[in-house]
Amino acid sequence: MSDIKVGIIMGSQSDWPTMKEAATILDELGIAYETKIVSAHRTPDRLWSYGKTAAERGLHVIIAGAGGAAHLPGMMASKTRIPVVGVPVQTRALSGVDSLYSIVQMPKGFPVATMAIGAAGAANAGLMAAGILAVSDPALAQRLDAWREALSASIPDEPSDD
Amino acid sequence: MSDIKVGIIMGSQSDWPTMKEAATILDELGIAYETKIVSAHRTPDRLWSYGKTAAERGLHVIIAGAGGAAHLPGMMASKTRIPVVGVPVQTRALSGVDSLYSIVQMPKGFPVATMAIGAAGAANAGLMAAGILAVSDPALAQRLDAWREALSASIPDEPSDD
Amino acid sequence: MSDIKVGIIMGSQSDWPTMKEAATILDELGIAYETKIVSAHRTPDRLWSYGKTAAERGLHVIIAGAGGAAHLPGMMASKTRIPVVGVPVQTRALSGVDSLYSIVQMPKGFPVATMAIGAAGAANAGLMAAGILAVSDPALAQRLDAWREALSASIPDEPSDD
Amino acid sequence: MSDIKVGIIMGSQSDWPTMKEAATILDELGIAYETKIVSAHRTPDRLWSYGKTAAERGLHVIIAGAGGAAHLPGMMASKTRIPVVGVPVQTRALSGVDSLYSIVQMPKGFPVATMAIGAAGAANAGLMAAGILAVSDPALAQRLDAWREALSASIPDEPSDD
Amino acid sequence: MSDIKVGIIMGSQSDWPTMKEAATILDELGIAYETKIVSAHRTPDRLWSYGKTAAERGLHVIIAGAGGAAHLPGMMASKTRIPVVGVPVQTRALSGVDSLYSIVQMPKGFPVATMAIGAAGAANAGLMAAGILAVSDPALAQRLDAWREALSASIPDEPSDD
Amino acid sequence: MSDIKVGIIMGSQSDWPTMKEAATILDELGIAYETKIVSAHRTPDRLWSYGKTAAERGLHVIIAGAGGAAHLPGMMASKTRIPVVGVPVQTRALSGVDSLYSIVQMPKGFPVATMAIGAAGAANAGLMAAGILAVSDPALAQRLDAWREALSASIPDEPSDD
Amino acid sequence: MSDIKVGIIMGSQSDWPTMKEAATILDELGIAYETKIVSAHRTPDRLWSYGKTAAERGLHVIIAGAGGAAHLPGMMASKTRIPVVGVPVQTRALSGVDSLYSIVQMPKGFPVATMAIGAAGAANAGLMAAGILAVSDPALAQRLDAWREALSASIPDEPSDD
Amino acid sequence: MSDIKVGIIMGSQSDWPTMKEAATILDELGIAYETKIVSAHRTPDRLWSYGKTAAERGLHVIIAGAGGAAHLPGMMASKTRIPVVGVPVQTRALSGVDSLYSIVQMPKGFPVATMAIGAAGAANAGLMAAGILAVSDPALAQRLDAWREALSASIPDEPSDD
Repeated sequence: MSDIKVGIIMGSQSDWPTMKEAATILDELGIAYETKIVSAHRTPDRLWSYGKTAAERGLHVIIAGAGGAAHLPGMMASKTRIPVVGVPVQTRALSGVDSLYSIVQMPKGFPVATMAIGAAGAANAGLMAAGILAVSDPALAQRLDAWREALSASIPDEPSDD
Repeated sequence: MSDIKVGIIMGSQSDWPTMKEAATILDELGIAYETKIVSAHRTPDRLWSYGKTAAERGLHVIIAGAGGAAHLPGMMASKTRIPVVGVPVQTRALSGVDSLYSIVQMPKGFPVATMAIGAAGAANAGLMAAGILAVSDPALAQRLDAWREALSASIPDEPSDD
Repeated sequence: MSDIKVGIIMGSQSDWPTMKEAATILDELGIAYETKIVSAHRTPDRLWSYGKTAAERGLHVIIAGAGGAAHLPGMMASKTRIPVVGVPVQTRALSGVDSLYSIVQMPKGFPVATMAIGAAGAANAGLMAAGILAVSDPALAQRLDAWREALSASIPDEPSDD
Repeated sequence: MSDIKVGIIMGSQSDWPTMKEAATILDELGIAYETKIVSAHRTPDRLWSYGKTAAERGLHVIIAGAGGAAHLPGMMASKTRIPVVGVPVQTRALSGVDSLYSIVQMPKGFPVATMAIGAAGAANAGLMAAGILAVSDPALAQRLDAWREALSASIPDEPSDD
Repeated sequence: MSDIKVGIIMGSQSDWPTMKEAATILDELGIAYETKIVSAHRTPDRLWSYGKTAAERGLHVIIAGAGGAAHLPGMMASKTRIPVVGVPVQTRALSGVDSLYSIVQMPKGFPVATMAIGAAGAANAGLMAAGILAVSDPALAQRLDAWREALSASIPDEPSDD
Repeated sequence: MSDIKVGIIMGSQSDWPTMKEAATILDELGIAYETKIVSAHRTPDRLWSYGKTAAERGLHVIIAGAGGAAHLPGMMASKTRIPVVGVPVQTRALSGVDSLYSIVQMPKGFPVATMAIGAAGAANAGLMAAGILAVSDPALAQRLDAWREALSASIPDEPSDD
Repeated sequence: MSDIKVGIIMGSQSDWPTMKEAATILDELGIAYETKIVSAHRTPDRLWSYGKTAAERGLHVIIAGAGGAAHLPGMMASKTRIPVVGVPVQTRALSGVDSLYSIVQMPKGFPVATMAIGAAGAANAGLMAAGILAVSDPALAQRLDAWREALSASIPDEPSDD
Repeated sequence: MSDIKVGIIMGSQSDWPTMKEAATILDELGIAYETKIVSAHRTPDRLWSYGKTAAERGLHVIIAGAGGAAHLPGMMASKTRIPVVGVPVQTRALSGVDSLYSIVQMPKGFPVATMAIGAAGAANAGLMAAGILAVSDPALAQRLDAWREALSASIPDEPSDD
């Protein structure tokens, strides 16, 4: 089995500027991952085989970003038991409310761990993946705690004008 | 090939009270149809095979109703070239706005002919299917014209208190 | 009868940058079409005569784009039995939610096949028109299948930074 | 010419429980009116002829109520120069936000004097019609002032538990 | 009494770029008007006296534009019987939905003839004022008809790329 | 000067079932108050005089509830310097989003301390008034602390089925 | 360390009818859990100590449900590294959109795995917790797979009228 | 005890361009204040200690600005009895509607005096703080009255084009 525990997938190349925030977090935490473009509508068979083989290939978490109708995270959740973390990508007309509703309003049986719209959500998807892996990886748990402490320590006491 | 030209599919039994409005219209217009429960998340393989065989089985239009994340119409549109008419089923918390956004905001390449939320939308899905079939079926075109004229003729001139 | 099977109409010149996406798709698929400005409010009589003569002129599908109150698609659907595909044009204050609601929330009797807000919706209107025509045009069905396969084949396997 | 100065029109019989609030106000103010069902989609020709003859028949104001796509007020405004007062009827899924957006978001050239959603809006449509007529009818202006004063005088000083 | 029949008021100088669209229409139709800044919150006494004297000063219509909480049109409607036409000015965070709801959702007794959000709404406020005045001014009715016909005549038959 | 430090005002008798939650809190905390119906639109002069005399009559806080266009809290804030706490009353069509936007989106110069929509918001208006008075009333501050502690102490440790 | 791996917490007793759907799922999957009422606002110190001791007490996942301002899930995520699954409870005025936005729109650093609004979301929270635990518990993974297969197998082929 | 009566806190440095509008108002009114960055999620212990010591340190009002999930104002209200004025900071995807709902929809027991979204809301937070302090500070009440009168006096009578 591969060392890669996390798959970052997205509906199109245009989602990458958002989704690479997830990759950056995984890099910072020393978690190996793969990145793929898997379009629910344009490459449904790729989605099917990705979902069907995810567990056996050793993936533990899938991070899926999509915008608009944003069917990718939910369809992936229907094809695999491993946790799917969904990132609603911001859209032009509806600002990502469409993406958010499509991802979060899943029916009973197929949860998607939905994050905030846009780049902050993608970064948080990386952290959620880390938190899930840390449940059974004490060394990662320590690195995650340290990451969180460093974030807190970086906050200045007072606002400044520049 | 079958005489059945229209497939009415829906994500769950609970969508049937809405979707049977489509069936009623098809009955009124003398159009043969089939009804199936095809859940995008609970029976994805059923969705796959339904979509892949739809054209060769002789279907000309698919009417798909779903609520919430409502991935069924869009996923069906990714699996078959034949027109998919989508019906957003009303939901408890978000009143069907979630269903509407998930169905209508499809990316380039995979249109879903989206109808109004709820029962009126389901009835209209039947009429849209009829309109599509009527393009190449003059007898149906006449029946559809007659249906429309009867609807118009049924409108009273003045409102009444009872 | 004319070879033109599809009419692309829009409420104003300002809708053209959106609506020409529909024209581009029809060009790619080798479908003849006409383009007209038909304003529901400014040229209601033009709307009337367009709708009344559409079928007899040999049109099989009408693509109608409009923004704001966006009455054009629905009014056209009331004047002709042939399928009307509606495109909600994005607006300044309400981002096209106004256009979307006005187009999609049609009462029983007069469906409009509503597409996504903006340019993707316009392109999809072209594809929906093609799908409708392909029901009775096997050669077009083959071209549409090829278009869809080419789209799928164009998706890269992994995202790239440039 | 008729003594009837106000036409109350609505898209369907189901709008009457809302729209009769307008009629009640006109009754209270002694303004003659007519009531008609004019469906933009089901009876477009009735809409056309109503709009075209409204001014010559002596109408001074048209009150138009509709729900959902709600094209009636705006289409009437395109067919006649006389003021159209629009009432968004409350709807099941979208609570009348669809009606409101369709009625109020008219393009330059064709204003609709939009009222609040539902019964309060219908009553206010009657008062707006009265206010418009009162511009050139001093006796009505006095009755309208009296109506307003009576409303103000009816407000108790303190709330009570029963 | 003054020849000025229409008052254009607005909550602040920043509303003027929107509201001057109303003035332009009145200029085109040869209707005399005045423009004032009347802030419901910053100059409530100015609002009070404007409303109380409007009818006796000979005003026939008041056009009131405001953004955000947008209390000006509704408060003016409470102070005078003459028709108030409200223009929701677009806002930064809520795009004018706040302005729209505050202006249109008036309680029974105090209608505001609400227009579309932004510049198109302001232009339409001018046309609505003209329509109201034209009820008792046949010459203006003719000019308004001509304006509308010119608008319709200006619509090209086909869209163009430049 | 009166012992009454808080005025609870509301736009209509129908707001009382909501607003009496504020009165109940003030009763629990031993704060004297008065209740009045003050309609921004139906009794604008009552609003004017209430606002102008509030400070000199010894009021320290005004709690104002209103629904729909909901101009009462904001207009009161324009007439008096003393803090106005606004309660958006839930409405039929728009659920109080209209009330909320009208109350909270005040322009610079005239803040309204806006509470949650409905009964919880009214109760919190009472607590906010208490908190404001407690700034200069140590005995009340103690009673408010005790009220808060009792609330916290009332929370059970685990949920129960009955 | 305890055998309890999942904590189900909620802001108030009134959230329990929603949140017990999560408990039911955990029961079905044989996962031990505890249930607590932890109010972010009424018992902040309970939240603090719960969060601080969660990891050391052996919890692996926290399911947190809340409505309205709904600060509980996000505040818990700030106090512990272990995954927090958030359930937006439906609310009276805003239907749970308020709960959803408050839970999902977390800033970078503190993800909450947000589920659908209401009971379906609570059930899915149980399944998400199971999926997270199953990453390192092959026996649970098998039970979860079986649960999912049973759900899929329960879907009838066709809708029925009763 | 300190002379500082008002604390301005915010969730992050990026909120300062908005929140300094509050500081400017306090400067204009001669009210001493402090500014701190207190992140509900990144520095929860700072929030805790700030809230617990606020009253004993002599603070009379806390102004808290935050965006997105925006838990800071509500959590502060749970930790201290002194009035908390909340400012919803505008956000990228949801324009601050998320911030607004999270801040205003507080449960019974913990009011936050919510202001408008963005800079106007921040300025008004300063004025609300001044109004609260003025309840027991007649000199400040005079300065606040003067500030309000100057604002009213600054409004021009007519709009101008430049």
